[in-house]
Formats: sequence, structure tokens, C-alpha cells
Amino acid sequence: MSQLLESLPRADGFHMPAEFEPQAGAWMLWPERPDNWRLGAKPAQRAFAAVAEAISRFEPLTVGVSAAQYRNARHMLPAAVRVVELSYNDSWVRDCGPTFVTNGKSLRAVDWVFNAWGGLEGGLYFPWDLDDLVAMKIAEIERVDRYRAPLVLEGGSIHVDGQGTLLTTEECLLNPNRNPDLSKEQIEGYLRDYLNVEQFIWLKRGVFNDETNGHVDNICCFLRPGVVALTWTDDRSDPQWEISNENLEILRSARDARGRSLEVIKLHQPGPIYITEEESQGVDAVEGTLPRQAGDRLAGSYVNFFFVNGGAVVPTFDDPWDAPALAALQAALPERKVVGVPAREILLGGGNIHCITQQQPKV
Amino acid sequence: MSQLLESLPRADGFHMPAEFEPQAGAWMLWPERPDNWRLGAKPAQRAFAAVAEAISRFEPLTVGVSAAQYRNARHMLPAAVRVVELSYNDSWVRDCGPTFVTNGKSLRAVDWVFNAWGGLEGGLYFPWDLDDLVAMKIAEIERVDRYRAPLVLEGGSIHVDGQGTLLTTEECLLNPNRNPDLSKEQIEGYLRDYLNVEQFIWLKRGVFNDETNGHVDNICCFLRPGVVALTWTDDRSDPQWEISNENLEILRSARDARGRSLEVIKLHQPGPIYITEEESQGVDAVEGTLPRQAGDRLAGSYVNFFFVNGGAVVPTFDDPWDAPALAALQAALPERKVVGVPAREILLGGGNIHCITQQQPKV
Repeated sequence: MSQLLESLPRADGFHMPAEFEPQAGAWMLWPERPDNWRLGAKPAQRAFAAVAEAISRFEPLTVGVSAAQYRNARHMLPAAVRVVELSYNDSWVRDCGPTFVTNGKSLRAVDWVFNAWGGLEGGLYFPWDLDDLVAMKIAEIERVDRYRAPLVLEGGSIHVDGQGTLLTTEECLLNPNRNPDLSKEQIEGYLRDYLNVEQFIWLKRGVFNDETNGHVDNICCFLRPGVVALTWTDDRSDPQWEISNENLEILRSARDARGRSLEVIKLHQPGPIYITEEESQGVDAVEGTLPRQAGDRLAGSYVNFFFVNGGAVVPTFDDPWDAPALAALQAALPERKVVGVPAREILLGGGNIHCITQQQPKV
Repeated sequence: MSQLLESLPRADGFHMPAEFEPQAGAWMLWPERPDNWRLGAKPAQRAFAAVAEAISRFEPLTVGVSAAQYRNARHMLPAAVRVVELSYNDSWVRDCGPTFVTNGKSLRAVDWVFNAWGGLEGGLYFPWDLDDLVAMKIAEIERVDRYRAPLVLEGGSIHVDGQGTLLTTEECLLNPNRNPDLSKEQIEGYLRDYLNVEQFIWLKRGVFNDETNGHVDNICCFLRPGVVALTWTDDRSDPQWEISNENLEILRSARDARGRSLEVIKLHQPGPIYITEEESQGVDAVEGTLPRQAGDRLAGSYVNFFFVNGGAVVPTFDDPWDAPALAALQAALPERKVVGVPAREILLGGGNIHCITQQQPKV
């Protein structure tokens, strides 16, 4: 019911809308693997359920869950959430799920090649075979035709403004553990063909110690065309300072596809946040999976939030910077309701609210 | 997204339409377990795929498949079929799936208790926990609200004419391995409440040696209101002769909910068909699962067909009675295209085309 298309979205008149454009709904996957989520994933499941609850107050949400966890997920999630069986290696639908494109009348899915953030050269676990089927399975459920893009890419490594501009990082997209045989120009060519964008803004590096190799969605995002939010710190002794300043320079000199310069809103980072001994001890040690060691710095960021219809669901960390971040986002998004959801347990797994969600645009 | 309703379909104005009424589509599950389907279920998968292909020529079809078999099923099934992940203990969606009811404007699901055709007292395998979730999972995927009926019942044990009449067998519905604490009147009460029927036609027994305890869908079905098809034999030495004649007497003296007497069209049974030594040897022997032994008689029947929009998909057995059965059905259903699909491999698993399909009515 989901046809595999041999053509290209750009040639077919399809493009990727911005996340802040109207959505038909959203997708999540249920956290489960005990070698990434402490204490059998129970604290993470509560955190994911709180995110699901927040999203479902704004728009329809579907959560995919394994056969083994189906009953528990159905029990823990609000009744308004649709729960479907859908297996995975881990629960990052932003990265393994489809990127939806539209021509204004119908919807199609771009199904990127997924290699668990670096494959055998620094990827986060093995195998990732079920993750790589997630986009196809979602396309089937939604009866949406599908393009299989011959490019290793995660949804969290790109942002678009819906008007022809793409924002990404060199640290991730040019990393030899993704597409070692492709030049920057060839990668831009694929992004142009599959997302129908014209202009590329290449940031350098993502958040310090981000295990995704610097996904843009943890450091910088569009708030609307012409306006971006950037993870920031004023502490010159923090390695994040140089990263954020370097990116700020790039953003200040950039032009988007319509020739606009960008307004940059700085969101001061939380913490820094570190894994505690107790948190580390709750994670199964498994050969081949990135360990979660006490004292490791986590890549906390308020930029890693998710737009919903009429709102934004933003991670909080029980941190002094929570309130300023929420206030800054609410001021920048006066037409939306900005909602904070405690997300330390999501961050402990290696990402945040944007990483565990995927929008399905409205057509 | 699928709300669990505490009310009753009848009180809410919902009823079960007849299978021959317009459908939005159909559901199947993918055969897999090697202790029921010979040779790792590969011949059965080919047979199911042929049924799916036949159905998908008439209407949308969704096939549920386990995570393990997803890629293989997606490969073997036509592109026009929607494939979704959905786990099960075995692949009889007629029996474990939802019974859809409608008020003409929206659809709801009746989710019966499932105990694998008799639970620990003669049921066909253990456990059946995943089967009992199938109706709920389908309701979730379709965003359809759900009634959980406190009655052990399989969809194959009932037929309705959509005008208030229900057809069933005493052998199954009154079997102490289903609802031992309920009287016939109490069972009728549940069927009245959940399916919104008025009149009950109780046949005695189902097809000889039918492991479901005589499901009606293998021996008798409505072709339209006032007309039924009945499995038949002219061989007085066959134990099926007495069963069919006993039921014929009941049908001849019955009145439906609108006071009509019934026209009975006899469909002569195939065979008799027996399991071969080779077929038996292809099945894993597992304690607790009904064995498939060489020489066992199979409950072959042409009545076990499935109505689709504008058609009927009918099992064939490479048997001299195939052509007369197809001709009789085509003559009785001149407005439909009657299609035969080879189904011995399905029969070897214990049922047939009607047992592996479930209609979703159009609203």
C-alpha cells in the first residue's frame, strides 16, 4: 500500500515543510533497551509518557511499541494516544523515522539509510536492522508512498525553514562514518533532490560531547523563517563556548534561500549536566553499545524541543536555566503555548524531545 | 486513540453488518508458526499471499505480520497490500480479530475474549496471549473505539444476515470449553447486546472433525438475507451426512428476524481430504499444540469462503467437487465475481479462507 517510488521528490514537486508548519500529527517510539535506558527503561518510559501526554494535548500522536512492551505502553500512555506495534532497536524516531514531504495535496515519505549514528565506525549500537525499517513501516501504516534515499542520514541532523533553506552541521553530515564516498557537493545534491531545498547553512560542530556527531537539532533550529535559536553559554572555560561562537559567526553571515539574514536567539545551555554514579549503575553493560559512565558530560540543550500545532514541547532539567529558556522561547513564539517537560531521563539515553519525535505534516 | 467503551453496542445503536454488505477493506495475519504450518510455513505463506492477491483485486487489504517475518511478508505480498507489524500466536484473524459494528456513521470494534478454541480444555495451542490482543491492536491502528465483550467467542462461530438474524452452532457456542458458566439464554443475551441481533438460528454440529468445535463458518453461511449455503454430502456412509441433514432440517424449519423462511443452497464437500505422510512430517511436534497426523481427516468445505466488494474468494482443493462448487456459488451470486484460490495448505493448518480474513465494513 506504500509504493516504493523510483523518482525524486524535487522532480515530483514535493518538498519538506518546516516543523512549525501545520501537522497532521506526530510519531514516537517507546524506550525499552536496558543497555541504553537505566532501570529497565522504566524512568525513561515515564518521561516519554509525559512527552506523549504533552503532545497529545495539541495534536494526534502515534507511539510505536514492540510486541513485548505493547500492554505496558498502552497502559502508561494516555488513551488519546494511538499505540501501534512497531519494532525498533531503539526509540529515536527523529533519526530512523521517515522525513515527510508534500506537494500540498498529498504526502510522501523519504526513507534514509540508517546506520545507528556511524555504523561500525563509532555508531552507538549493533545491529540497527529494525531501526532501518521504521520509516517503511510508518509509511505502510499511513498508506504513504515512499522514496528510499541512497544516503546515510538521520532526521535530527537537518532542519529546514520550509522556504528552501537547510541547516546542518559539518561534524555530522561530513563525518566519514556516514557517507565516506560522497563530497559535500554530492551530499548537497541529494538533499536538494530529496528535500527540495536551495540554500545550505553549514554550521561547524554540534553540542559538546554529543554522541550523534553533532546533530543540528541539539544546537540550532528555526523558530520561523529568518529566525533561529542557538544553544549558548557565556562561560569561556566551557568547550561549548567556542562551538557556539563559531556557529554564531556562521549564522550572522548567512543568508537564507530568500536572501534574508538570520535573527539569532541564544538559549543558554543547562548545567553542564553529568551522569551520576547511580544513573550509570542502572544501565546494562553490553559490548557494542555506547556505555553510560558516571561523570560523563551529557549534551543537554533547550534547542532540542518539538513544535506541535499551537505549541512547543521543551525539555527541562530541574536546572536554573530552565526558566530563562522557557521564557525566551515563549517570548520568541508568542503565538504558541510553550510547555516544559522534565527530560533528564531522555537526555541520559543520548538525546532529547526533538530526537524522540517526528512530525507528520498536514496536507 | 481507541477508547475502551463501557456501554453496549445495542444500546448505542450499533450493529454488525453482514459480510456481503459494502466493506472498507479486509484484514489478514501472516502464517508463521512451524508447529502448525508445515515446512516453516512457506507453503502456507504462498497460499495466504495468493488469497491476499485475490482480495486486493477487489478492495483494500491489510496484512498483520510479526517483526521477524515483516520483510519476507512485504516481499511476498503484492505492493497494493498494506503490511503492518502485528504479533499473534497464529494467523486466524477471523477468530481473534475484532467484529466490527456500525451505526451507519461510524465504526466500532467488538473485542471478544479469545481462548484458542477451548483454552486448556481442548484448545489448539498455548499460550494465546498475543491473539487476544489482536482486536485491540487493529482497533488502535484504525482509530476505532472498542467494546470488550465478557464472552469467549471466535468470529468464525457466528454469521449474521445484517437484518437481525444470527446463525451459529451448539457444538461451539454451548461447548463447556468456551463459556461453561453461561446458559444458552445468557449467551443469546450477550450476542443480542453486542451484535444487535433479534433472532437466533442454532445449528447442531459443524463439519466432521472440525478442530474449532464446529464453527458455523465452515458449514453454513448467508449468501444474502433469506439464503444460506450449507456444506453437503450425498454419501450416507460419511459421518458428514448426518450432520448436514440434521442442520438442513433446522434450516428448513427456521425463520429469520424478518419472518422469512430460508432458501438452502447445498455445496457438496470436497474429498474427503486426509493429511498425507509427507504433509505431517513437515510440522514441528510441540507439546500443547494439536498434532497434524498422517491420515487425519481435514474439515474441507467450500462454505469457508470470503465475501469481498463485488466478489467472493473461494477455497479450492484440486478436487472434482471444485468446479461444481464454484459454479453453484457463481449461479447463486450472479452480481459477484466468484474466484477460486487453491487452499489445501490453509486447510492443513486447520481452517480456510474465511477463517484467515476479517472484513471491515464501510460506513
